[in-house]
This record gives sequence, structure tokens and C-alpha cells, in this order.
Amino acid sequence: MSLVVVGTVAFDAIETPFGKTDKIIGGAATYSGISASYFGKDIKLVSVVGEDFPTDMIEKFGQFGLNTEGLQIKKGQKTFFWSGKYHVDMNTRDTLDTQLNVLLDFDPVIPASYQDCEFLMLSNLMPQLQKKVIERMNKRPRLVVMDTMNFWMETQMDALIDTIKLVDVLTINDSEARKLTNEYSLVRAAQKILKMGPKYLIIKKGEHGALLFNKEQVFFAPALPLEDVFDPTGAGDTFAGGFIGYLAQTRDISFENMKRGIIYGSAMASFCVEKFGIERLAELKQEEIDERVQQFVNLVQFDIELV
Amino acid sequence: MSLVVVGTVAFDAIETPFGKTDKIIGGAATYSGISASYFGKDIKLVSVVGEDFPTDMIEKFGQFGLNTEGLQIKKGQKTFFWSGKYHVDMNTRDTLDTQLNVLLDFDPVIPASYQDCEFLMLSNLMPQLQKKVIERMNKRPRLVVMDTMNFWMETQMDALIDTIKLVDVLTINDSEARKLTNEYSLVRAAQKILKMGPKYLIIKKGEHGALLFNKEQVFFAPALPLEDVFDPTGAGDTFAGGFIGYLAQTRDISFENMKRGIIYGSAMASFCVEKFGIERLAELKQEEIDERVQQFVNLVQFDIELV
Repeated sequence: MSLVVVGTVAFDAIETPFGKTDKIIGGAATYSGISASYFGKDIKLVSVVGEDFPTDMIEKFGQFGLNTEGLQIKKGQKTFFWSGKYHVDMNTRDTLDTQLNVLLDFDPVIPASYQDCEFLMLSNLMPQLQKKVIERMNKRPRLVVMDTMNFWMETQMDALIDTIKLVDVLTINDSEARKLTNEYSLVRAAQKILKMGPKYLIIKKGEHGALLFNKEQVFFAPALPLEDVFDPTGAGDTFAGGFIGYLAQTRDISFENMKRGIIYGSAMASFCVEKFGIERLAELKQEEIDERVQQFVNLVQFDIELV
Repeated sequence: MSLVVVGTVAFDAIETPFGKTDKIIGGAATYSGISASYFGKDIKLVSVVGEDFPTDMIEKFGQFGLNTEGLQIKKGQKTFFWSGKYHVDMNTRDTLDTQLNVLLDFDPVIPASYQDCEFLMLSNLMPQLQKKVIERMNKRPRLVVMDTMNFWMETQMDALIDTIKLVDVLTINDSEARKLTNEYSLVRAAQKILKMGPKYLIIKKGEHGALLFNKEQVFFAPALPLEDVFDPTGAGDTFAGGFIGYLAQTRDISFENMKRGIIYGSAMASFCVEKFGIERLAELKQEEIDERVQQFVNLVQFDIELV
């Protein structure tokens, strides 16, 4: 598929009210890439890991359909590590530990075989690196989607705004949209962000769904009401991967098709949270995805005839 | 219309980040009744006020299409008064003052002309009084909708559960659903509540929309993303009034029609929050309501063809 996914590949240690993991495989690009792989194979990964990263996992990436030619393996260095603990509401979490390791001097290299890709997913990463990736593509991709997080707003706002200027679609959560704009109203926040460069904005509201804005229109997709959210880690990345994966598969970047992309992304995210890490994502069947999308259709479908 | 609306008619004093009111007209039955009046006239009000309640307001109720035969006016007593202050997020508020006054010994009387009504809206009130109203109807109405609040869960849980048993549709907000069931997951909370008596449950999530459950199905309606929420007071009552008003107008209590009722209720609520108190609700035109409902259709409408 004509899709490059850039971002972190990591070890995570996660604690939720339901349990606790040792180091498991995580990272924004891992979630986005695996999610996108359900929409087409040969997803072109750009990332970095240390010598400690299991080679059988890299093989597994290949089996998912991820092209790992752009995955750098740094001898004598350690993989990025993140550890966090979720509160009982599962919407808030504390970071317990962050060890940047290989990320500290990561210099993303775009292999020749990745050039001329039409779709580029910039998963959460230092904004300067996201910008570098855009600059290192021979030709600007047809659609650049960027995810980011509050941490960069606190530490590198100028670099972040510099990168946001260059992308087509920005995906952030509601509190990040508020932080980025100093506006409490998401409608006002969206108006401001759409003046910063992106033509489209997706505001992720977790269990409350997602909003897609362009200058004229707004679309709302619900989250599926779930009995339990087991582990929300990676849900946003999985959403973004499903969104751009669907767009890359259909090669249609209209607002109408982005709506469908958001529904597919939401469906993928609803699987992600059912188990720890990538466990549930790694075992999906196409029928399960179709069935889940049908649940979204049923959830919001109504029929009003205005006279 | 074959609809009785029971609940408070009150004076409110409201403070929001946008401004402050002196005593203005409020009360759950006021909001529900006026909202329902856009779906049919002769809404049968059951409530109580004091001698201090302005007679020109009672006349105005009549002009809205509210039948005030069941509105008791207590000589020498004062109208129920509530005062509250909203926080900057507009989702949380502090109660500054509550003076029950006439509510203390309110004994709801159902006029003979109200009997045999098909639809009954029990707006927020002491649960014993809501129960009494059901008992005082000669014939059980075809559909009984009940609203309540966390305060009764804290002070009169047994009486509350006793009344919930008797109704068809319960409408509460997300934190109340959690409080009532000790379940964090709204899906689990809904399952428990649907075992308590009601056949339908509506969970109101404010700016995050509303969920409708029965034992087999779930429907989600978004809230309209608004630039500003000026005053959320009465939004839930307005929602409920629009919901039951639409059902009473169409005389169809199927799940499919309840979905439409929720969209109309959400549209009415989206007007309510635009100004203080009943100000915006009191001046609506049918075209404005239709236009708002069309905005809801546009907001959630997407088209996926599963193969």
C-alpha cells in the first residue's frame, strides 16, 4: 500500500485497574501500522529500536504486512520505554517512567522504496522529526496526517506549530485541542486550528467519540459503548492507523470518505482497548471488523423525514 | 395533546462564566412543558407555586399552550427557589441555595380533564410524589417517562427504586447511572437499570450526547458541537420534554421512533443552553427546530456499504 507510517516502536509497561504487564511491545507506529495493515499490506514503517528489541517481533511485523526496511536497529542501544498507570475512569493516566533511549538521537531515514508514497502518517513523535520526514520525501505525499500530544505543547510549542503548518489532517484529543488554542469550546478551538495550516482536524474524545472538522463541515462519530475498557493504550494510534489505512486503501480523500475512515478507525480502536497492548489487534479477522463497523452503523442510524 | 407533565415550577438565580441572573423563571416542569409545547398544544401541567409567582407568567404559560388547571397556587407561601453557580467547564455546578418552600407539602392533584392521558412525563421531583402521580391516574398511561437526580439517590434511594420500578423510560445522566448501580461502565450500568423495571433507559451525557438502551439495542445521539454554552440550566428537562412531546405527537412508542424523539429532544436542548433560563426556548420558530434537526442529521450521517 502507498502508505508510510512514522513514529515510535517501544516497550511499554502498563498498569490498569484490571491488571499489570511486564515490558510489552508498544509505540505509536506499532499501533498505527498494525491497524493500517488490515486495509492493505506493505505498510512502510519508519522508526528506531535498540539491540534489545526481539528479532522475532520484527519478523512478526513482517507477517502483519509491515515493511521494516525503514526500521533502524541501533547496536548497543536500548529501545524507547514508557510506563504508565491508568486511573479507574480509564480516561486519565500517570506516566511512571519514560526512557527515551534510541529516540534521543533518532534521525529518520526514508528508504528509496518508500519514496513517492501517496499517504503519510506521522504518528506521535518529536515535531522536528515529523517535519524532517515531510522534507525527506522526494515529493510531498497526497495526504499527510499528523498525530501529536500535550507533552510537545508544553515543551516545544514553536516547533510543533511549525510542523502543524505543513500537514493536511491533525488528530489530537479534546484536552490537547483546548491547550493548543486556549479555547474551551471545541468548535472555537477547531476554528483556530484550521487557521494554523491543516485543512482537516480530528478531535478524539475517547469514550465520547470523535469529531471531524473542515472549514465548512463537522462530522461526529461515536465510540462504541463497551462493557469494559481493559487497556486504552494505543487506542488513539490505532484509530489514526485505521483512518489513514482506509483512505489509502480507497485512495479517496474527500470529506465523505474521511467520515468512513473515522468509522473504520473507531472500530479498530474499539478492538484495541479489549486486551493489553497489541494483543487483540494482532488477531483480528476481517469478519470481526465488518461486524464492528455494522455495530457503528446501527448505533447512530436514525431516519427523520423533515417536511 | 394527550400529555401530562409533572414537576417543579421555580425561581432560579444562576451564575455562569458569562453572567448572572436575578430570580428568573425555572423549574423542571417549566422547561419540559415549554419544550413539549412545540409538538402540540394543551400540555397538562401539574405543579405548585407560591403567591409570589407572577400571574402574567401563568398567563404566558397558557400562551405557550400549557394547561395550568393542575398548577396549584398556595396563598401565603413562597415558590420553590434554587440558586447555582456553574464552573468554567459548564458541566459541573455548585448549588448555592435551595429553598423548598411550597414543595415541602406539595400534594399533586390530577384534574379530571387530565385523566386518561396517554403520555406522562414525571420531571425531577421527590420520588414519592412521582409515584403518587402514577397512582392518581385513573388508568395507567401508555408511556411513563421519569427523570430524577443524584440528590434522591443520596437521600431517598429506597423510595427512588420503588418509583423507578413503575416507569417505562428512565432518563438520568451518566454520573447518576453510575451512582445508581455502582458500575463505572455505562453498558453495565444500563444492564442493571433495565432489570430494575424500566424497559428503556436514556443516559444523558451533556455535551457528549445521549444513549438510549433497551435490553437488545442501543442508540447514540450526539450533542450538537456549540460555539458557546451560555447556561445549561434546564437542558436535561428540555431534552425530556422534546422527547416525550415528539412521542405524544406521533403516538408511536417504538424504539425507532424513540430514536427520533431523542434527536428532537437534543435539538430542543441545544436551543435551551444558548441563553439564560427559558429565554431562547420561549421564542423558537418551527423552521428553526427543523433546521437544527437537519444539523443533527448532517452531523452523524455517513454511508458505508459493507460487502
